[in-house]
Amino acid sequence: MVTRFFPLAVSAAAALLVAVPVAAQTLAPREVPAKTLPVPTTVSPQMQAIIAQPLRTNWDKPPTTPDGWRELSESNVTTVAPQIPAMAERMRVSIEPSMLDGVRIYTITPADMPPQNRNRLAVHVHGGCYVLNPREAALPEAIFLAGFARMKVIAVDYRMPPEAYFPAALDDAVTVYKAAIKMVPPANIAVFGSSAGGALTLEMMLRAKQEGLPMPGAIAPGTPMSDVTKQGDSFQTNAMVDNVLVSPDGFCDAATRFYANGHDLKDPFLSPVYGDVRGFPPTILTTGTRDLLLSNTVRMHRALRQAGTEAVLQVFEGQSHAQFYRDDRIPEVKEAFDEIGLFFNRHLGQ
Amino acid sequence: MVTRFFPLAVSAAAALLVAVPVAAQTLAPREVPAKTLPVPTTVSPQMQAIIAQPLRTNWDKPPTTPDGWRELSESNVTTVAPQIPAMAERMRVSIEPSMLDGVRIYTITPADMPPQNRNRLAVHVHGGCYVLNPREAALPEAIFLAGFARMKVIAVDYRMPPEAYFPAALDDAVTVYKAAIKMVPPANIAVFGSSAGGALTLEMMLRAKQEGLPMPGAIAPGTPMSDVTKQGDSFQTNAMVDNVLVSPDGFCDAATRFYANGHDLKDPFLSPVYGDVRGFPPTILTTGTRDLLLSNTVRMHRALRQAGTEAVLQVFEGQSHAQFYRDDRIPEVKEAFDEIGLFFNRHLGQ
Repeated sequence: MVTRFFPLAVSAAAALLVAVPVAAQTLAPREVPAKTLPVPTTVSPQMQAIIAQPLRTNWDKPPTTPDGWRELSESNVTTVAPQIPAMAERMRVSIEPSMLDGVRIYTITPADMPPQNRNRLAVHVHGGCYVLNPREAALPEAIFLAGFARMKVIAVDYRMPPEAYFPAALDDAVTVYKAAIKMVPPANIAVFGSSAGGALTLEMMLRAKQEGLPMPGAIAPGTPMSDVTKQGDSFQTNAMVDNVLVSPDGFCDAATRFYANGHDLKDPFLSPVYGDVRGFPPTILTTGTRDLLLSNTVRMHRALRQAGTEAVLQVFEGQSHAQFYRDDRIPEVKEAFDEIGLFFNRHLGQ
Repeated sequence: MVTRFFPLAVSAAAALLVAVPVAAQTLAPREVPAKTLPVPTTVSPQMQAIIAQPLRTNWDKPPTTPDGWRELSESNVTTVAPQIPAMAERMRVSIEPSMLDGVRIYTITPADMPPQNRNRLAVHVHGGCYVLNPREAALPEAIFLAGFARMKVIAVDYRMPPEAYFPAALDDAVTVYKAAIKMVPPANIAVFGSSAGGALTLEMMLRAKQEGLPMPGAIAPGTPMSDVTKQGDSFQTNAMVDNVLVSPDGFCDAATRFYANGHDLKDPFLSPVYGDVRGFPPTILTTGTRDLLLSNTVRMHRALRQAGTEAVLQVFEGQSHAQFYRDDRIPEVKEAFDEIGLFFNRHLGQ
């Protein structure tokens, strides 16, 4: 084997054979100088405006008390809730809150549905690091799927700390899933959600396997928190690049530990990338090139492919964490949900 | 519309409605401080060793004369050529150089082929920024596809500067494609290659459309140089992170300009992301999270999906440019080529 290092080996073919034995390597880190990242011009003007936003205010100053988390969470609801009616009107959906087997839900029904969707149902689990986005704040992504894909959605307003801790969110999501499979055939059901909701989507499949429940027809975990132990290269490469999550040591990490309540973060019910994903249904994963969870997403994609799952990946240019559902008036948001809708349509029963 | 910016909006649902009108935004760049990137532990030990390599020596000191480029190119051949026999033995393929309609080629034939591959053919166009990797240096990726997918491959050793300039590489590739479609039905043909070879794969489809040639059954452009005008966010975000291409102002940019020879770099025959890709065959694209061409790859994926093409994307954790074909003994390399082989098998005629 040739082990000589040659100067300026260019594309991979030339460089390929520098296979120094691993044991002989010092695994030196890469020193990356400070840089100024312009806003890319390769996205829509609307998305440029989102990318140009500064790092989230107070990203490194999370609440430290249950009351502090509750206040933050309520302030988000106060911001989002007044915008829901106009959003529902643009998307032509109606929204009905209710309880389902003891769990708070919203049922989102499109004003019109194509025939193939009339006996289908999507279950939505919202994001927010397991602590944020209760009530109306849970709704935007659910509304977008209902609106763009013209499918009925049940959005789970699961319990969160300080009301209840791990695994309450998952328990509530599974309760709703159990009810859903009595409403329509499991093959006609999709499960979706992003960030913590992406992780919950995957955790629901692990729990369904454990309990012997049937799999749904398809799932769409967006930028899932599939590994909350901070493993994954993009936690470093996209730190201070992603303007939403910003850093692996930011508020989302603090929130997740608040939910985990001392439980091992490597448990597949918190970090599903470590779970046995054999038998998972067809899966579409979504992320962005600046996403702190880019690695969480592509590692999950690889794990699913290695297990033989029909899993596809979409990565959006320049987007930070979960910006693919930032606002329904952004072209890339319609594009992402159109793709998810097409994927569901391809894989769900009718 | 609510335009108030609220503190610590967490995952996208909460943050989503900060839709300040675009015109009112100052599109401020992001200032990213210097950072130290550890080698990720989320890849194989062999890939960790590749990721830990320092930035390519002399990445910012490309040759400035035709003789300088020729010397560099020859030094790469000198390094790679002696390793080809062992590689061919590991992959159980034979290699035969010849001429096909005036173009230099290598025919790579697996020692055994499954029945479904016996009337199939893959055409390979190598990478090297349109200037590097002639002769044996062109072969590794072609050998890996032949070896892992057990398919016959014709590798095009196309003319490069200073022997010939744009569009000579494309002309040679298309000459071989025209010969190939006389050997087996076009639907049984795959075209693949990475970096400049990924761009050439796409350029061949544009040229085939222009000349009214039939499309092949499937293509696999790996980390394509789909935009050589330096547009694309990862040219900035992954600058000094990617240890192969390193920077948009490095040797690959210089090499491409040497090939283009004054031609407009935005011409779709040099930057195929700007081409009309309607009617392209099923496509699998491959890249890595540290790849300088991550954006080139995901933008191409989006362009193909927008045109209605069956296009799938695989993104490998922690890899810089084209490291998915660095060495056949790396688990992630087998994984990438197994996926490409599965995709070809799904989409090619027999």
